[in-house]
Amino acid sequence: MSHLKNDSLPVFEWPVRVYIEDTDMGGVVFYANYLKFFERARTEWLRSFGVTQQILFDDFSLIFVVNHISVDYVASARLDDELKLTVEVESIRRASIHFIQHAWRNETLLARARIQIVSVTLPHLRPVAIPSSILAKMKND
Amino acid sequence: MSHLKNDSLPVFEWPVRVYIEDTDMGGVVFYANYLKFFERARTEWLRSFGVTQQILFDDFSLIFVVNHISVDYVASARLDDELKLTVEVESIRRASIHFIQHAWRNETLLARARIQIVSVTLPHLRPVAIPSSILAKMKND
Amino acid sequence: MSHLKNDSLPVFEWPVRVYIEDTDMGGVVFYANYLKFFERARTEWLRSFGVTQQILFDDFSLIFVVNHISVDYVASARLDDELKLTVEVESIRRASIHFIQHAWRNETLLARARIQIVSVTLPHLRPVAIPSSILAKMKND
Amino acid sequence: MSHLKNDSLPVFEWPVRVYIEDTDMGGVVFYANYLKFFERARTEWLRSFGVTQQILFDDFSLIFVVNHISVDYVASARLDDELKLTVEVESIRRASIHFIQHAWRNETLLARARIQIVSVTLPHLRPVAIPSSILAKMKND
Repeated sequence: MSHLKNDSLPVFEWPVRVYIEDTDMGGVVFYANYLKFFERARTEWLRSFGVTQQILFDDFSLIFVVNHISVDYVASARLDDELKLTVEVESIRRASIHFIQHAWRNETLLARARIQIVSVTLPHLRPVAIPSSILAKMKND
Repeated sequence: MSHLKNDSLPVFEWPVRVYIEDTDMGGVVFYANYLKFFERARTEWLRSFGVTQQILFDDFSLIFVVNHISVDYVASARLDDELKLTVEVESIRRASIHFIQHAWRNETLLARARIQIVSVTLPHLRPVAIPSSILAKMKND
Repeated sequence: MSHLKNDSLPVFEWPVRVYIEDTDMGGVVFYANYLKFFERARTEWLRSFGVTQQILFDDFSLIFVVNHISVDYVASARLDDELKLTVEVESIRRASIHFIQHAWRNETLLARARIQIVSVTLPHLRPVAIPSSILAKMKND
Repeated sequence: MSHLKNDSLPVFEWPVRVYIEDTDMGGVVFYANYLKFFERARTEWLRSFGVTQQILFDDFSLIFVVNHISVDYVASARLDDELKLTVEVESIRRASIHFIQHAWRNETLLARARIQIVSVTLPHLRPVAIPSSILAKMKND
């Protein structure tokens, strides 16, 4: 079993401030922009292990691509709001990682998401195993 | 039964051209930007009935907000690609519409999505019934 | 004299529809998004000669990068507005092109811009002469 | 003389991290996205005086709109770069502020901009004097 239960990993948190660029004419954050926030948090989660997408590319010729997202929008965010984006690993497989992510404003849940990314090689974007040295970092080994 | 089966409605199609603004450093369309494309298609689907979001707001004080999305990313789109975005109504309820949407490049499926929008009143974003005159147009009555 | 006066070339026009993605909480098009519209028009101006950025890259290993913009914002655009974006060549030099671009809604001027792009080679982004076959097309020779 | 020379005010700095959302297929930050970075810095400059755009709107029924920008793009930014955005006031007039802004990566200048904003009232966007209490804060009185 190569799965890793999320209760074995702490929840990673990343702050995001809402700027005018994020809002739409409804006065709230445009629904697509939460996907930017979720990705910023995943990028910082990776960086917290000392892993950047530049390293993945340069050292392993691989990139992560998103192949599935599911988002429930529960409440709205507005200009100047300080959001907290979370990253939890639901499971790590050979070539993919399943995340659960939330967007909070204080105690108010704004959005929750399940996001699945796949490790692929360039240029043909074929799935490839996540390098064991990277996996070890993700699993806190 | 307030549901409306999607086989009773034609599939609406809308063309979208990929520009540099849509791409990311991977050379392909950034995953969040498909949500812009899907919304352009839903906006044009509404317009095809003579309904604009300005009319909904001015005449009925309502707006549509997205409360759920689920997207599978199947293949990538690149600069200059001509995409075809589709809109199918899976079901219409009193205050919500469930859509199935696809992004195609010729015969290649790029992404498929289920998107649920809710009719709400301003300023408190409370769910409200979609006006019957609008519903009638959507149902081709 | 390598310059080409803009009165020797017709003004190119490209339609752009305003969607929710383009607006901000002020209810109008976010100021940065006009640069997307201007670029869409320049891309379509190139395409009108049969030139795509993919061709420039594949056949000539060159890309165009923007090195100067100046924009006056005169009036606002709103959701559903149909804009007309124009492209005029002010001058073409060995490795750069100076454009004058406008954004119109019917007879109302929304924004006017001067935009300068430079032809560079990858990967070090060094200026390089625009290929004569491309220049000839731009000059309608 | 209502002008205020910029040497009487310190340069405000704001850090910005580059994420995938900011890049384009050229592997660098898309030219329009610098305008988002510049605005984030101006927003934080205002916040450093205790002024938010929500306060301006709620207490004074005014918003700031951009009416002129001029940007020179000098060097490119890439994924993971840590940028430093600066805000300097060139002059403050009755209803407008002229800014000089720079984007830096360490000692490398990436872009420099002149940006002019105007204080206007809603809903007709007519120019209106910046409230003296806000002006006093900006001038460090």
